[in-house]
Amino acid sequence: MSFYTLKLTDDDIVEMIDQRKLPDKVIYLKLKTYRDVIGAIKKMVVRGAPAIGVSAAFGLYIGAKDIAANLGVLNSVKNSDSLGDNAEHHNNKCGSGKKKNDCRASDNTQTIINYNNNNNNNDARDCEEFKIKFLKICDEMFKARPTAVNLEWAIKKMKKIVIENDGNNITNILKKLREESVKIYNEDIEINKKMGNFGASLINDGSTILTHCNAGALATAGYGTALGVIRAAIEDKKKIKVIADETRPFLQGARLTAWELMSDNIPVTLIADNSAGLLMRKGMIDGVVVGADRIASNGDVANKIGTYQVAVLAKENNIPFYVAAPLSTIDLNIKSGDEIPIEERDGKEVSSVFGKKIAPENVDVLNYAFDITPNKYITAIITEEGIAKSPYNKSIAQLFRNIKN
Amino acid sequence: MSFYTLKLTDDDIVEMIDQRKLPDKVIYLKLKTYRDVIGAIKKMVVRGAPAIGVSAAFGLYIGAKDIAANLGVLNSVKNSDSLGDNAEHHNNKCGSGKKKNDCRASDNTQTIINYNNNNNNNDARDCEEFKIKFLKICDEMFKARPTAVNLEWAIKKMKKIVIENDGNNITNILKKLREESVKIYNEDIEINKKMGNFGASLINDGSTILTHCNAGALATAGYGTALGVIRAAIEDKKKIKVIADETRPFLQGARLTAWELMSDNIPVTLIADNSAGLLMRKGMIDGVVVGADRIASNGDVANKIGTYQVAVLAKENNIPFYVAAPLSTIDLNIKSGDEIPIEERDGKEVSSVFGKKIAPENVDVLNYAFDITPNKYITAIITEEGIAKSPYNKSIAQLFRNIKN
Repeated sequence: MSFYTLKLTDDDIVEMIDQRKLPDKVIYLKLKTYRDVIGAIKKMVVRGAPAIGVSAAFGLYIGAKDIAANLGVLNSVKNSDSLGDNAEHHNNKCGSGKKKNDCRASDNTQTIINYNNNNNNNDARDCEEFKIKFLKICDEMFKARPTAVNLEWAIKKMKKIVIENDGNNITNILKKLREESVKIYNEDIEINKKMGNFGASLINDGSTILTHCNAGALATAGYGTALGVIRAAIEDKKKIKVIADETRPFLQGARLTAWELMSDNIPVTLIADNSAGLLMRKGMIDGVVVGADRIASNGDVANKIGTYQVAVLAKENNIPFYVAAPLSTIDLNIKSGDEIPIEERDGKEVSSVFGKKIAPENVDVLNYAFDITPNKYITAIITEEGIAKSPYNKSIAQLFRNIKN
Repeated sequence: MSFYTLKLTDDDIVEMIDQRKLPDKVIYLKLKTYRDVIGAIKKMVVRGAPAIGVSAAFGLYIGAKDIAANLGVLNSVKNSDSLGDNAEHHNNKCGSGKKKNDCRASDNTQTIINYNNNNNNNDARDCEEFKIKFLKICDEMFKARPTAVNLEWAIKKMKKIVIENDGNNITNILKKLREESVKIYNEDIEINKKMGNFGASLINDGSTILTHCNAGALATAGYGTALGVIRAAIEDKKKIKVIADETRPFLQGARLTAWELMSDNIPVTLIADNSAGLLMRKGMIDGVVVGADRIASNGDVANKIGTYQVAVLAKENNIPFYVAAPLSTIDLNIKSGDEIPIEERDGKEVSSVFGKKIAPENVDVLNYAFDITPNKYITAIITEEGIAKSPYNKSIAQLFRNIKN
């Protein structure tokens, strides 16, 4: 990879590529507080269900650290190895001309943090206050965006650390929180690669694959879900071409998928969303692979607005329609897509394009950010534990049983 | 109407609202040569199949006049009533605050042109040269855009005048050409109103109607095809709301349909094209009405890219899908939509939005301007002679028989 989506630096700053600025500018933002992370999620500096989950985990860790500092139980933080190269990342175009290791995907694994604190035994009141404040920031984080379930999933994992270690030394809890967030990050990449391998088996050599939105490295800790399947197929020496829907209104396809694939020299052709149907009718698309923001236990999929349309068109044209998503995206608590909340966003995202007004002043706009694709349109759901097919109630339940066993 | 799409002024200038500038600026361009008109069609100053047809007719008339002038058979042109108010139209916002007659839809009907020429009897060589040159500019005009059949239809009508009057006095031919172009203009408005009346019978009171692209007054000489149906339903005292697909890449829905309906106080809500499917699934759309650029004799419809997708989604959600188009849009020479040429346009229309780059530099783009909606997705085709339903081969043939009888 010639870029990275996000990472936790050695000095506990959350660095993120600013996806709002791509492909024009490659800028890595440094987020120093959990509120910065919430802002980044809300404003779509970072997007994509798995990347939102990882961001939330990092955000909660740095938030927890601040709580501890404010309680006086963590006076200062000293890291074993200051990253020191942050400045370089700013406005740093990580193009193909640079060596790959110039832009490290993560420094997290190599780092041991030494907390220089004098309170090895916090009093019970501090512990209780730490816990209450941490749960409060968890609630704040939860409200950042409503549709992606990975956000909730990551928050739950972080909450669990605090609750299971209730009464434990706060410094130890912080260490565990850091470890957990880094684990979520690393596991996400690992999961994507597993998913990619399963998915690649479904993609024929010489295929042209349509994708909608960006379910790539930029939507995850790295490698990608839908684009992970493409990457794995290419690693298997298959010749694959990608057609990228531009994905109005936020243009993740035009800005992010096209940029990400071009950065990795994967052939990509951009189309307006309106062209997908024609290309399918003309036999120019062999398959569709998309990501997901939440999947119900019956296999209904919430994903970027427009996904449902692509799925209906694929079915109408006898083209397989695949969803690639980690099990963390599957919400077993809900029976069908009807129960998934659909985020409505500011109409200005439609009536103007990056500051350029494209519609009359004060026009009424409806701007749903996601839609639901009923399971009947989905050929298969690709996960890190294998491929689920209809009937999804059974096949999804089986995937979860596999993990437990 | 608080604006006009195009007109032939008394001093034989083709005036057009510059649709590329809407809704930001209301600018009427003055086109003085047939080449200006071809340029305006190519560059989409004017678009919409019927409006392209009328533009071509006006363009051929002013082209013919120039040929005559160059042959020396038409030394000067003096009109009975110079319009004199052209300057006012420039940058003139014809909003609801102005009196309706401040922006005349056409001055053509009131005008008698006095050609001050000294060659009432042209020699045979001049006549032949006039004809040859006229047929040549017809060929040039024909190439302006490939998909809309109304262009060809209007050219044929104008050609017929010249061929039928072969050897006749050139001044007389010019008069007839002017009359024919004005007739095409006036008939277009009349046809739209007839179509509107037929179509309105299909629209229930209280309906929310989705439309794609702009098949409104701006796509015709006035009143509109699809939006003519809406206008007629509203004139029938029905409460109608319109959902306008923004219609990427050229954004005719966001820029033109929204503006045109807001100008006439017709309730309109703008959506990204990707939202149509979700709104249909949510039961928020009761019917779809679109225009057409060419209709095959079997009822297959070529229309703005994305129309096919909307039609498939409508069928999937049991929503009626109507096409409103004059008989001049029906090409009886072709058996199915497969024979209709689909224009491919510059990829930059997709990779940038009015100068704002939205995709990486040099990204590959596929930009088909139209698609084909097979007849099986179409509930009815609304024409000025009545409503055609499946089987379209029969019902369309019947409509043409009706005119002949």
